[in-house]
This record gives sequence, structure tokens and C-alpha cells, in this order.
Amino acid sequence: MTNFGYELIKTDGQARRGRLTTAHGTIETPVFMPVGTAGTVKAMLPESVKATGTEIILGNTYHLMLRPTAERVAKLGGLHKFMNWPGPILTDSGGFQVMSLSDLRKITEEGVRFRSHIDGSYHDLTPERSMEIQNLLDATITMNFDECPSFESTQEEVVESMRLSMRWAERCKTAFEQRPGYALFGINQGGIHQELREESAKALIDLSFDGYAIGGLAVGEGQELMFSTLDFTTPMLPQDKPRYLMGVGKPADIVGAVVRGVDMFDCVMPTRSGRTGQAWTRRGSVNIRNARHALDERPLDEHCSCPACTNYSRAYLHHLNKAGEILASMLMSWHNLHYYQDLMAGLRGAIEAGALDAFVAEFEAQQALGDIEPI
Amino acid sequence: MTNFGYELIKTDGQARRGRLTTAHGTIETPVFMPVGTAGTVKAMLPESVKATGTEIILGNTYHLMLRPTAERVAKLGGLHKFMNWPGPILTDSGGFQVMSLSDLRKITEEGVRFRSHIDGSYHDLTPERSMEIQNLLDATITMNFDECPSFESTQEEVVESMRLSMRWAERCKTAFEQRPGYALFGINQGGIHQELREESAKALIDLSFDGYAIGGLAVGEGQELMFSTLDFTTPMLPQDKPRYLMGVGKPADIVGAVVRGVDMFDCVMPTRSGRTGQAWTRRGSVNIRNARHALDERPLDEHCSCPACTNYSRAYLHHLNKAGEILASMLMSWHNLHYYQDLMAGLRGAIEAGALDAFVAEFEAQQALGDIEPI
Repeated sequence: MTNFGYELIKTDGQARRGRLTTAHGTIETPVFMPVGTAGTVKAMLPESVKATGTEIILGNTYHLMLRPTAERVAKLGGLHKFMNWPGPILTDSGGFQVMSLSDLRKITEEGVRFRSHIDGSYHDLTPERSMEIQNLLDATITMNFDECPSFESTQEEVVESMRLSMRWAERCKTAFEQRPGYALFGINQGGIHQELREESAKALIDLSFDGYAIGGLAVGEGQELMFSTLDFTTPMLPQDKPRYLMGVGKPADIVGAVVRGVDMFDCVMPTRSGRTGQAWTRRGSVNIRNARHALDERPLDEHCSCPACTNYSRAYLHHLNKAGEILASMLMSWHNLHYYQDLMAGLRGAIEAGALDAFVAEFEAQQALGDIEPI
Repeated sequence: MTNFGYELIKTDGQARRGRLTTAHGTIETPVFMPVGTAGTVKAMLPESVKATGTEIILGNTYHLMLRPTAERVAKLGGLHKFMNWPGPILTDSGGFQVMSLSDLRKITEEGVRFRSHIDGSYHDLTPERSMEIQNLLDATITMNFDECPSFESTQEEVVESMRLSMRWAERCKTAFEQRPGYALFGINQGGIHQELREESAKALIDLSFDGYAIGGLAVGEGQELMFSTLDFTTPMLPQDKPRYLMGVGKPADIVGAVVRGVDMFDCVMPTRSGRTGQAWTRRGSVNIRNARHALDERPLDEHCSCPACTNYSRAYLHHLNKAGEILASMLMSWHNLHYYQDLMAGLRGAIEAGALDAFVAEFEAQQALGDIEPI
């Protein structure tokens, strides 16, 4: 039986090169987790997701509890078998999506009551129910059920919300059914306020979790405030546990957060962008729908080894996007995930080599060049 | 340099086992050609299309002339390179889609003027322009530009339309630029009327084409009238040239047409059905959106070796379809094409073995059973 664990292999400044051991396989960190919202990384076959270098994916409790339901996934053998992804899966707690997607919601000390965005039906989500759902899904890494205040909240609202989340954290810890190789992560809250992050970190560390997420960022505060919040928050978290920055982000956000000591990331960016014609490359983002690509025989990135770049021209990708073809989403999502995972591999290699500063300087120089000239 | 040719290997009754040789590879017949309307077999990577056993695909002149335009495809190296399909491609002439898709059209002796369904712009399509477009696309097999009357047309209208198509056939033959390994097919018209099919066949044979298509069927006349029309039409066509039944069809249509001596087929059915949750199997069609699949751990077909059947349950496919996930279209299209190509391989093997009757009897018995019981 495998126990869940984090091994810190090497540091370079605050940045950490590590390895997670789980019931479903090992994960090299820093790691990017593609989002498989409703039991599929959109427009990708699981073997293609794996081919990009992906070692762990994320599933959404909110979506899966509504459809097909956690009980149904459990009956069908759990999420790994259901979606043909035998590797590690992290599930979020449902808290964030309840805030951002559901039609109506009412928050009490007990939990949240909300209406489904699919059919308007009423549902309750509590710390205990979130643990139960994630257990039914067979999540390798379960996330605490927390409340995520919007960036517009007052400091007073952020305090109240954070303290509610910390009380829920204790209930999550109690309700979580510990199994070998499985993990429960706490989620640090407190907005951009150092003293609140500190209070939250202490509360979580007192409860002792297998890993610590930083929540409540990437909600509109901008990169500068996110980085400054990370600057004081990551040092509050234990050195011997993984740190996960939820919902981040653009490539530059990830690079900056790795520099600041974050180990894990998830974001819909590469797949969502892929479905709207936006590519991420070493030279920044490329809108393939732009007319300048219509006769461009070059690949998106000549140095990229993904199928979209190996077999197709920008002109073809432009055509597919204009024509609304499904293959556009398939190829662009594949490229974007491939680029993200290449970037993570580059970051891991740079930390190992003690050369992160040079890597980041080169990353920023490339991004600044833009993609008009041959890449 | 390869010359285009058809070799008749074996017959079983009217059914023919043959082989086409083309500039882009050989094709075992009877053959099914998946439709790649706008430069992509929808929701499929070309390597996946090939993995189903596909040897030749179809491209649509109407769609490609409007977007990205034939001139642009030519500048980008032709359709094979553009869409990463190095194998044979047959293009239709645009005639059928002008009738069925364009907003307005005016037919004269010269050709057709129509408005694009995409942007309302005016376009002219003539026999000469259709040959030019298909040449620009680099079609392995070019189809004559013809007029396809609807099934509601009077016999008088069908006569006039057929004779116009035969005059256009002569202009196509003159305009077609013959290259080694490339082919031009004539299209037999005349609705369900034997004397008109006869007149059309003679006109085409006088002009001498590399293959002969049967057009104007599968437009609403029903299977019985289609088969009775084939019964008298295929014997009118040369033994030493391939015969192509355009736009057909359901598996049972294809089986019946192979029995009646047809060699080539194309249809959007497997891919279009795949995008709406309909699977084709040995046991007939399956609507995966039906609630009875929601907890069904069986694959679509236990004896099918496609990825959808190898790696996923009906319950998962049901979920993906209900959730509107792109992966639903990807997996269902793949399964359907795989089934179609398995069926064609079965038909080819049966003709070779002189056992087509038994194959057809077994096919019909299986289809009649339905899929409720384990397949």
C-alpha cells in the first residue's frame, strides 16, 4: 500500500522541485493539472492528455454531483474507471463553482443551499457532503469545502468568510475518510490580507493536512496583487507539504508563482482558450482567427512537437476555427496543454539545474517578442 | 507514374470485389468513403480516420469553394497536404449542395448561380469551373458537375434535368485536365425511370469515364425504390469500371447495394449520427441518450475494437452526450466509422469467399435482434 507523501528534491530560491506519491501514481512538481470538469478534459482523449505530459487531472465536484451524480459515478467504479483516467485525480470541493455557476445560493453555518444551473433543482453542499461526494468519486486528492469570497468583498466580509472556512475545515478533516495513498488538502483563505492569511494558515496547520492550497486568488485582483500575496503566504506554509495555487493561470502567472514557491496549479485556460481559437506559445498568445493566419503555412510554433504543430499549418487551424469545426477545438486544446506541460517540464529542469533565474529571463524575453516573426 | 485503374478481383452474384489504383494509393472495394466536408472528417483526427480502416475520404466542392476557397487550398499545397490526409480524396462537384444548401439559385444551360449559405455572396458554378475547382483542390477522383432533381420532380422534369446533366458531362470531360493516377467519374441520372437511366448510361459510356456514379438516389424515394432502380441500373454500367452510389447510406442500404453490384459509397451518416448520440452497431442503431444506458457498464458493442467500445461504458457515453461534451462526438463518430469500415471489410471478405448470401443473412438477423440484450 502506497502512502501519500511529498518529497522535496531541490530548491532554487523559493522555488521547489518535488515529487508527490499517491495511490494512483507519482507526480513530479511543479505540476500543472488540466481541468476535466464533467469527467472529460474537454475535446481531448485521455491518452492525448497523457501524451502532453500530464500526470494528474482535476475533476469538478459541482458538475459531477449534478450530472451524472457522485452516487452514479461510484456505482460505475469511480471517476478513474468512468473516464478512463487511471492516474491521479484531484477534485475540488464544489465551493467555488457554487459561488460562480449556480443560480441561487444561501450560505449558513451548516453549508450552502443552491439551485442547479442545469435544471434548477435544489441541492445542499456541506463540508460533510463534499467529503462524501469526493470519496464517492474516488478522488486521489480531496479538497476542503470552503467559501470563496469575491474580490469585491470588504475586509470584514473576507474575515468572516475565512473564519467560516476554517470552521468548515475542521469538519472536513473529521469527515474525511483517510485511505492509504489518498490525501486531503486544506485551503488557505484571507484575500490579500497578510494577517488573515496568517490566521488561516495557523488554523489549517493546527488541523494538519496532507497539502495546503492557496484559495481566493485569481479572482480579479491582478497579477501584481496575486504575486505580493504569494510573497507573504507561501512562507507561512509547511516546507514538507505540497502547495497548490487554485485556478491559476496564464503561463506568466504560473512562472511567477513557481518562483514564489508554489508546487501545483490548475486552470481551464489551455482548454477553454483552445475552444475559442486562442493558442498559447513561447511567444505569447496567438489568436488563430486573425486574418493574417489565413495563408500562413507555418505551424503555430515550429519548435513544438504536438500534433497540431507537427501536422498542420496556421492556415489550416485558421480555417477550422472560422468554420467552427470540432477538430479546431481538438487540435488547439492539445497544443495548449502540450505547451503548458512543456513549460512545467522546463521549470522543473531549471530548478533542478539551479538555473531558474535564467529560465525565467528567457521565458519573459520570448514572450515579449510576439509571434509575428517566425517562431 | 501510377495510372488510375480498376481491377475486378472476384464476383459473387452481382457483387464485386475489386481494387482501385490511384496516384494517392490503392483502395479495396467495395469501399465506404467518410465525408470530410470542409477539409476535416468532423470530430476526427486523420490518423483516427485511417485507424478505422478508411482508404479514401470525400471532400465537398461547395463548402471548400466558399471557405477557404479552392485557390487558397491550392496555394497551401492542395487538400491532401492542407488537411493532412495523404491518401486518395474524391471530391463531389458541388452540384448537389448547391441544390440543398445555398440560399438562392438559378439554373441555366451555362451553369448555376447561387448565394452562399455562409455570407450571402453570389457564386457561379459551371461544368468548367467545377473541374477547375476540383483540380485546384487536387482531387484524386473528380466528379462530373450535374444537376440533381428532387424526388418530387415530374418525369418530364427528370428528363430535362438528366439531359442537361449529360450535356454538362461532355463539357466536364472536355475541361477535365487528365493526370496520371487521377480520375473523372460520370454521374448516371434519370431518377427511378429505367429508360432514362439507360439513355443516361449510354451518353456517359459514349464519352468514356474512369468510373460511373449513380446519382439522384437516396433523396427520399425509400430503400425499395432505390434497390429496384439499382437492379436495372448497375447492369447498364461497364464491368471494368468502378460504380459509385452517391450519398448512401444506412448499413442496410449499403449491404443491399453491394449485393446489386455497387463498389463505392459515401455518406455523412456515421459522423453526423455520432454527433447526435446515435450509434450504429451490428444490432442496429442505438440512441445512447436513452435513459436506459445511464448505468449500463457494457460497451456499445463488446465485439467492437474501436476506442469507444474498448475503453468506455455506455453509461459514460450517455453522460458525455447528455452533458454536450465534445468527447461524445469524438468517440461516437469514431465508433460509427469503425463499424462502417468493419462492415465493408466483412462484405469484401464474404465476396472473396463466395459467401455473400450467408453474410447478408447473418447481417439481417443481427440487425433484427436489437441491442437491448448484451451484444
